[in-house]
Amino acid sequence: MEDDRISYHDSVRTVYRRIKEDGMTNVWDRYEAQGLGGNPDKRCTFCQEGIRCDLCSNGPCRANAAKDKRGVCGITADGMAMRMMLLRNVMGASTYHYHTAQTVKTLRATAKGETPFEIREEGKLRTFAGRLGIDTSGDVKDVALRLCDFVEDDFDREYGQPSRIVELLAPEERQKLWKELGIFPGGIHTEMMRATSSCLTNVDGNYVSLALKAMKLGIAMGYQSQIVNEYCQDMIYGIPRPHNMRVDLGVLDPDYVNVLPNGHEPFLGFAMVQLAREQEWQDKAKEVGAKGLRVIANIETGQEMIQRWKMDDVFYGFTGNWIMQEAVLASGCVDVFVSDMNCSMPIDPLYAEKYKFKLIPVSDLISFEGVTERLNYIPQKAREQAGKLLRMGIDNFKERRVAVVPVTGLPVREAVVGFSTESILDALGGKLDPLLDAVKDGTLRGIAGMVSCTTLRDYGHDSHTVDVVRELIRRDVLVLSMGCGNGAVQVAGLCSPEAKELAGPGLKSVCEALGVPPVLSYGTCTDTGRLADLLAAVSDGLGGVPLTDLPVVATAPEYMEQKATIDAVFTLALGLYTHVNPVPTVTGAPSLVKLLTQDCKDVTGGLLNVEIDTVKAVDSMMEHIESRRHRLGI
Amino acid sequence: MEDDRISYHDSVRTVYRRIKEDGMTNVWDRYEAQGLGGNPDKRCTFCQEGIRCDLCSNGPCRANAAKDKRGVCGITADGMAMRMMLLRNVMGASTYHYHTAQTVKTLRATAKGETPFEIREEGKLRTFAGRLGIDTSGDVKDVALRLCDFVEDDFDREYGQPSRIVELLAPEERQKLWKELGIFPGGIHTEMMRATSSCLTNVDGNYVSLALKAMKLGIAMGYQSQIVNEYCQDMIYGIPRPHNMRVDLGVLDPDYVNVLPNGHEPFLGFAMVQLAREQEWQDKAKEVGAKGLRVIANIETGQEMIQRWKMDDVFYGFTGNWIMQEAVLASGCVDVFVSDMNCSMPIDPLYAEKYKFKLIPVSDLISFEGVTERLNYIPQKAREQAGKLLRMGIDNFKERRVAVVPVTGLPVREAVVGFSTESILDALGGKLDPLLDAVKDGTLRGIAGMVSCTTLRDYGHDSHTVDVVRELIRRDVLVLSMGCGNGAVQVAGLCSPEAKELAGPGLKSVCEALGVPPVLSYGTCTDTGRLADLLAAVSDGLGGVPLTDLPVVATAPEYMEQKATIDAVFTLALGLYTHVNPVPTVTGAPSLVKLLTQDCKDVTGGLLNVEIDTVKAVDSMMEHIESRRHRLGI
Repeated sequence: MEDDRISYHDSVRTVYRRIKEDGMTNVWDRYEAQGLGGNPDKRCTFCQEGIRCDLCSNGPCRANAAKDKRGVCGITADGMAMRMMLLRNVMGASTYHYHTAQTVKTLRATAKGETPFEIREEGKLRTFAGRLGIDTSGDVKDVALRLCDFVEDDFDREYGQPSRIVELLAPEERQKLWKELGIFPGGIHTEMMRATSSCLTNVDGNYVSLALKAMKLGIAMGYQSQIVNEYCQDMIYGIPRPHNMRVDLGVLDPDYVNVLPNGHEPFLGFAMVQLAREQEWQDKAKEVGAKGLRVIANIETGQEMIQRWKMDDVFYGFTGNWIMQEAVLASGCVDVFVSDMNCSMPIDPLYAEKYKFKLIPVSDLISFEGVTERLNYIPQKAREQAGKLLRMGIDNFKERRVAVVPVTGLPVREAVVGFSTESILDALGGKLDPLLDAVKDGTLRGIAGMVSCTTLRDYGHDSHTVDVVRELIRRDVLVLSMGCGNGAVQVAGLCSPEAKELAGPGLKSVCEALGVPPVLSYGTCTDTGRLADLLAAVSDGLGGVPLTDLPVVATAPEYMEQKATIDAVFTLALGLYTHVNPVPTVTGAPSLVKLLTQDCKDVTGGLLNVEIDTVKAVDSMMEHIESRRHRLGI
Repeated sequence: MEDDRISYHDSVRTVYRRIKEDGMTNVWDRYEAQGLGGNPDKRCTFCQEGIRCDLCSNGPCRANAAKDKRGVCGITADGMAMRMMLLRNVMGASTYHYHTAQTVKTLRATAKGETPFEIREEGKLRTFAGRLGIDTSGDVKDVALRLCDFVEDDFDREYGQPSRIVELLAPEERQKLWKELGIFPGGIHTEMMRATSSCLTNVDGNYVSLALKAMKLGIAMGYQSQIVNEYCQDMIYGIPRPHNMRVDLGVLDPDYVNVLPNGHEPFLGFAMVQLAREQEWQDKAKEVGAKGLRVIANIETGQEMIQRWKMDDVFYGFTGNWIMQEAVLASGCVDVFVSDMNCSMPIDPLYAEKYKFKLIPVSDLISFEGVTERLNYIPQKAREQAGKLLRMGIDNFKERRVAVVPVTGLPVREAVVGFSTESILDALGGKLDPLLDAVKDGTLRGIAGMVSCTTLRDYGHDSHTVDVVRELIRRDVLVLSMGCGNGAVQVAGLCSPEAKELAGPGLKSVCEALGVPPVLSYGTCTDTGRLADLLAAVSDGLGGVPLTDLPVVATAPEYMEQKATIDAVFTLALGLYTHVNPVPTVTGAPSLVKLLTQDCKDVTGGLLNVEIDTVKAVDSMMEHIESRRHRLGI
């Protein structure tokens, strides 16, 4: 594969060459091999345009909107494409909510003193509980338990009964609209069940109805799953606050025992850091000839961790995002790869064998062919489980160090991470006004929430994300970065203070005045909910301006998987202008495309902009931002 | 399309000619149009073999097991095929459970006296509540409310906590095995969420793990959804007891106002029958020139109704199953088509326009392009809603009668319907012994549970189902028929006493002795759970013979949609030999095929037999039955 299709990052290109030399299957070659007619991006037209279905035994079917060719059951191209998209949305929502359920379990056990964690942020607990109308009197542990009960009851709330969490957290104006549209959700369990059932053959073949159901689920997910999840994790592990963090593949040093939590759930990752910071564990690592024991953050588990905890010689740094995975594993520096919930590749066992590391699933969601050892996370056993994982790393070190030649000389840099609503307020002296003033007076044109994954489609790994973000900051748009896309810009240097030099004059002056980078690292894709809550605060700060009138855009320059699809649907329900790339597999569905890219603005105020080209995408985002500025008279 | 590919039933062939004359799109022509290279059954190889995936933006991908060609993420052909199958399983489970949730809501409202229904089967309520360990003292309404609380708590039960319903209903031997395999389920909500999440890109790429998760979900579904659903419906609407029912398209008389409940949920159908039996409503129909007002049963809503309520001139008969739908609608006899939950075709609005009937969704799961009028079922408003639906029919009659030339002279016949565990016991004089004795002495070789849909793949509508069932009864196997396949054999005459002439000598003698047909109409696909419970009773009756040792098979000769897939997975978990046709879209996954068709017998004792040919399929079922007889020494 050509160099520029490998990755934006030199580090990844370097390890790719090693992977090739070793003759290992890898994501780049597999991507290329999927291409038809010598074009790596060309795939089966019906699959790529979303106009095929294999749900029932009368199929597989293909549709053609122009000829009104339908599936055997009579479903149209539009219905097919949106139904499959809703299924992806359910998968995304479900996985987010799984994480949330685990977090609530962890909070409950922590409140009872059964975990190695503690409630670090009593203030946040009381504030959030207060927002939810929960009795905040008494001991912090009692409040935490009440909060757990309250949210779990809401998750199970009956269909048709409005979610209390959404009622208490979402902006009034949105709530009114969602009720009018019939998309105000009940408990997320029943919403997931109903959305899934609607996708059955011969149930809902109407793309408009399916799209509205997606938004309903998106709203449930945004508030019940994402916000509850992140805020509860804040309570246990700390509110994100800005600090430096080492990033890129150079954080891997072969002479250390390196244990890598990977996925989206940070529980065992944090437990391992706590333990590894004890001298006893460092000594154990030294006994086997290592310089020490390190926990290295990866992907979204990594983002959850690095946004909250500071680096030291034990919690050493962050490698990068999902597409890097094989590069991380082939570095020859990994002793244990701890796979929670998602973002571990099915191919990992082959890498574990070749590069001599232990591959351990810690969630029963995860499974690999041929890997039988596992250690499913149990909050009450977190310390013991973390110890077992560290022990595996220590036991692995000698063999790995002898058998595998590590890749050395990989780069490392520092990024500022840890922005959150609270820490932005701190940076601004307690209120949003300095930021809002800069927006009002035009120093900043607007704000972009960049929530993205990473994909090889159309561009190399992270290239398009970096390009879009550079183009945005050049035009004086402050970017809040989330998800694997956040990893992209951290490693690319855009979350460093020096990146202000790449910003337009207005943004640059704001960066200098506030001492922040032009791209504020805002966590994981799960923090989309946190962003929604921040925007609600901004809307309040501007005297109740509807979300849809703010000079704000959402962008996913490299969306990859199903969580991203429900994020996008949620931002559409919020009324945000939402740019996505690559082109979703719906283009064979002309009415659906029209609904999402044109008519949606008359429904929720949100709009999907699908654009591959960097400059055109940002032109279009700027046009939206300027039109909103105009509407606000600023 | 050639005649023998249209349908087994003359009635359907007749109306098909009318549909063709009218130039209407229809399921047969759409099926043919999907064929590649002039072969209606040939489709894209990758889709048909289950070795493609379009979940993420690195795809769409195709896999090839022989060449170890994987998806971009590294997933194998086996992983791809099983992951998509698990998604289908979740869809099926979810839709079954939606129905169950509606039933429990209806039971709760009925216990409170808020519906037009009553608790008809106090004995069943107390017996079932007793089996679940619920306090059965006091008023019947209190017991009902306790039952509702108990089952809803179980649905919401936390992951990892064993479902009480499964613990209390499933055979001991199965429970032990399921615990050993780690597939004993918790509450179905969390099981659905976990199964769905496992299907996300980069979560579970291991076909073995995915298959076990499918079984776990199947067990939750079988007991928590299906059994609870059917038994609660029994309490409200009556335990199925044998009686005659008119079937086939001839039940449609153009001179009557015909209101057709369609789908799977019988609530409004029953409410309409209750109302239409009132003289006042018959008079209203006569006022518009009709001979009267009829409620005509369809598909699975129809099966739910006809197995419980006797026919008369109002509740007149049952049309048939899903593939017939356009024939029913094109008959020119329909005034209102009442669509609940599933099995309404996306194409129906075109038929409503052409043949002048009202198409009304009564569940918000259902939606059609262009249909805005709806009437979502609310238990407390069932009477009022039923009245509105009947009124619509009456208001529609005149225009329909003028504008549409009806198809007349369609056949009608009678089938015996309404077998259930209780009514089989009644027929046997209170205990299973006469039946078990006939099995033991070889008069009956065994029992087949035929749970099937209807599909056009490989054969005409219902042809293969009828052939398989005829072959089974010819070989002295008693058949219990469920689902759309039940509709097939009812209309084909196999549920009529005269069908004994088609049976082998042993089965014929049993039919004569007991006065039953050789095929016992056992309800809907949801009654798979009821069958599991019956088999557990048979196992007890034989002194605790494990289910897997019984001379019993399950067969789905024409499985079509996603509910069927989870039924099959459930029967595999039960340890049953399970024949399915058409060939599921997994054939490009060699290890998965081996697991399901060979290795599964060493895991659960169940086995999937995929066989298109009728005689070979039945040969193989007989071989299994005889091997079990041999093992039991009978």
